[in-house]
Amino acid sequence: MSFEKLDALGRRLESLEHALSILGADEATHMAVGGGEKRAEAMANLAGMYHTQSTAPEIRDWIEAAKAEDLNEDQTLALGEFERSYVNATCLPTEFVERRTVATMRSEQLWRELRARNDWDSFLPALEGVVDLVREEAALRSDALGLAPYDALMEQYDPGNRTETLNPIFADLKGFLKDFVPEALDVQEEKLSQRPLKALKGPYSIENQRELGLAAMRAVGFDFTHGSLAVSHHPFCGGVPTDVRMTTRYRTDQFLFSLMAVLHETGHALYEQGLDKSWSHWPLGKARGMGIHESQSLFVEMQLARSPEFWSFALPMIHQYMGEDAIPGWDATDVLNQVNFVERGYIRVDADEVTYPLHVILRYELEQDLVYGKLEAAQIPEAWDAKMTEYLGISTIDDPKDGPMQDVHWPGGAFGYFPSYTLGAMIAAQQWSALEKSLPDAREQIGKGEFDAINDWRRQNIWLQGSRYSTPDLITRATGEPLNPEFFKAHLRKRYGRNG
Amino acid sequence: MSFEKLDALGRRLESLEHALSILGADEATHMAVGGGEKRAEAMANLAGMYHTQSTAPEIRDWIEAAKAEDLNEDQTLALGEFERSYVNATCLPTEFVERRTVATMRSEQLWRELRARNDWDSFLPALEGVVDLVREEAALRSDALGLAPYDALMEQYDPGNRTETLNPIFADLKGFLKDFVPEALDVQEEKLSQRPLKALKGPYSIENQRELGLAAMRAVGFDFTHGSLAVSHHPFCGGVPTDVRMTTRYRTDQFLFSLMAVLHETGHALYEQGLDKSWSHWPLGKARGMGIHESQSLFVEMQLARSPEFWSFALPMIHQYMGEDAIPGWDATDVLNQVNFVERGYIRVDADEVTYPLHVILRYELEQDLVYGKLEAAQIPEAWDAKMTEYLGISTIDDPKDGPMQDVHWPGGAFGYFPSYTLGAMIAAQQWSALEKSLPDAREQIGKGEFDAINDWRRQNIWLQGSRYSTPDLITRATGEPLNPEFFKAHLRKRYGRNG
Ligand SMILES: [Zn+2]
Ligand SMILES: [Zn+2]
Repeated sequence: MSFEKLDALGRRLESLEHALSILGADEATHMAVGGGEKRAEAMANLAGMYHTQSTAPEIRDWIEAAKAEDLNEDQTLALGEFERSYVNATCLPTEFVERRTVATMRSEQLWRELRARNDWDSFLPALEGVVDLVREEAALRSDALGLAPYDALMEQYDPGNRTETLNPIFADLKGFLKDFVPEALDVQEEKLSQRPLKALKGPYSIENQRELGLAAMRAVGFDFTHGSLAVSHHPFCGGVPTDVRMTTRYRTDQFLFSLMAVLHETGHALYEQGLDKSWSHWPLGKARGMGIHESQSLFVEMQLARSPEFWSFALPMIHQYMGEDAIPGWDATDVLNQVNFVERGYIRVDADEVTYPLHVILRYELEQDLVYGKLEAAQIPEAWDAKMTEYLGISTIDDPKDGPMQDVHWPGGAFGYFPSYTLGAMIAAQQWSALEKSLPDAREQIGKGEFDAINDWRRQNIWLQGSRYSTPDLITRATGEPLNPEFFKAHLRKRYGRNG
Repeated sequence: MSFEKLDALGRRLESLEHALSILGADEATHMAVGGGEKRAEAMANLAGMYHTQSTAPEIRDWIEAAKAEDLNEDQTLALGEFERSYVNATCLPTEFVERRTVATMRSEQLWRELRARNDWDSFLPALEGVVDLVREEAALRSDALGLAPYDALMEQYDPGNRTETLNPIFADLKGFLKDFVPEALDVQEEKLSQRPLKALKGPYSIENQRELGLAAMRAVGFDFTHGSLAVSHHPFCGGVPTDVRMTTRYRTDQFLFSLMAVLHETGHALYEQGLDKSWSHWPLGKARGMGIHESQSLFVEMQLARSPEFWSFALPMIHQYMGEDAIPGWDATDVLNQVNFVERGYIRVDADEVTYPLHVILRYELEQDLVYGKLEAAQIPEAWDAKMTEYLGISTIDDPKDGPMQDVHWPGGAFGYFPSYTLGAMIAAQQWSALEKSLPDAREQIGKGEFDAINDWRRQNIWLQGSRYSTPDLITRATGEPLNPEFFKAHLRKRYGRNG
């Protein structure tokens, strides 16, 4: 039976993915410094084997033959995802993939070096090369998938996302935020004039911070029989669903940043741990996509862990793990004022939940123009500055390092990825609203540190669905309606607005 | 060029080996408990890919064609090892390999369960099956290699080892030890009657023990840019030469056992780290075999770290890392009396350096009889007991758990491996003697904690040689003469004998 051949192929590919995921996590956490060269060689060869095995021509025949076979509903959906993966993996000629790999690796290396030197001009030729390749890739993917070129790029990260749907949603959100950011800043200023921000008094030992992080992970549902927490330079959530490798980093003058980062990554981890393990070797059994994944991390970080209810439960944990003198005299409001502090800034990854979407929308708009030839790489600094000035009232024209050179995405050729971040924030708010309808005392449960019912809702509606549905269909099925920015706007108004 | 095809194959195989080694080390150190099933599946699939790629029929053609090519000396030797590996990997039919894998996995599982229950009778049928398979395997390997059946089994672990050479050497050593064990026990009794063994007074913190172990590793030459130390249930030295993964375990009532285990594994690690990295993707670039590997670990553990000179240097380290009160009033002699304590015991892995070879020779003799049909599995307990009684004066007839059920080797089908342990001890003594000839102040250097010149000798004569020569040829080249048990006997006499 051809479906069985696909099933067996899935197991071989899962094993290679397993090796690549664990080797990747190990590299960032436990590898000896001198082990990098051979590790890179090993991972490149394994990735090559993965590519060869996942794009073999006979797979096309198996897929076609399996369509005529007697399959149950899961198998039928699985076959659809096998086909989607195969088409996405084979729609670029090998010659192009090799050319792109060389160019983006070189461009990423250059970017690391030149960003540190704030040198846009020297970087520009490499970025121009990447933009050319991305246009070529978008055209190739567009032909293969029958989608508009930018949609064909997004399809890699969130199947079903279309600019036709997203453009009005992002435009609406942008319009809202242009007015709302000043409002939130005013509200914050009034609040803080009456109750000033308190200063953290370190040092906070790494051992205590680790214990606090572990306790927070456990509290919100992380399963330590299927995962662990380690230290790495950049926090990530990697590994495999049966052995999720989460990392964080610590600063001894601060513990709240690390704690919030741990909670964010725990959101990703819960999704991976909550996938249906019996499908883990099918594309159908994997997490749906980047926007949905980010919605799960932001659900924990923003919807749960930055709420007042969470801190009425979590504040005693701080005292328990960091000592009674860690934040003397603070109550939950003081913590919330710290972690929910709003600020117009240059750097996307440092942005708060209110201004973050403007950083994303700026990139989303620019990268569409780049893909469609309405903007050239040389024009990015001016265009970036114009939008930063318009959306956030700050200029980056003299500081490309903190402007268009701040992210690895474009140097690495990852166009179509940025919208996932804000999509995730919107989906998280919409999920919270749907969840609260079926679990009216959800806020009280958070306040008691009870996350089982909340996680069960997410498990049934998101995690166990794997890749059964496209991103828009999954949103509609889980929340009862298509993506609607009103939920996120209402969430921001409630937390940061004048009448919140 | 066909040699280039072999070279490229070597790189692909090295990458799969890299993944398997790191995944194996990770499993024992950092894997979440629930990750085992998927890890086993991943490693089995990667091992399958390794087998498929390393036994592909076209490799035979590449090897034959490469013989006619213009190769330099290293490439010629490399080609020889490619051929040796290929012949060893392909001499068993796939059908047999699958049958053996299933049987030995099942037998190992049963052994774990039944050993704990001391139940030989229930285990016997499984072991009989394994013995049948081993006889079949020995015949197949014998045909393919033109060697005697037991020699063909040993050839997997130490190429070039032949019973014709080893039998008289082991017989000689056995004869020596029958008299020498009582002598060593008498000498020890006299010494200890004048200066009784001191008792360790724990608890010894794991953190301190870890720091002491790291310091000892660093002192004898472990390169921490290419390796690390972690904790696992059973100590091992794994990973890859550029990233050696060493482990140990700790007991809080004892720190000397863990320290000596760390030094033993460091010996293995130095060999791996010292291999020629430019050949690491050829069979030629790998460590020669089990006997030579064990000679490198025993060189550090027995020749260096159990010597009086070592402890005149190492005793202050104990005080530094474990505290001044760790071993109050002890001098180097007290430590040596502890770590070099001789005792007739049941368990090979717990045996001291004097009695250990008798445990090995017993198994070496029995497994030859098993392979050649002179002994049946059902007769093992009687035969084991007769030899234990004859060699060590103790009976295990009523306690199979601590008799023939104590080792995993036979349940796992690894016949021909045991001699490597004692071969390693003899080679280590012979190497020390050769080294001391070219470095007459080697003992003084140990006393000063200087291991660079000692390691350089080993690097040139052993480590950098990789698999250029068969085990016997490597011994002769490194030490100037073939394996000669007199060096080991002299070493034992000096350390444990009446006139030592
Ligand atoms: Zn995230
Ligand atoms: Zn060893």
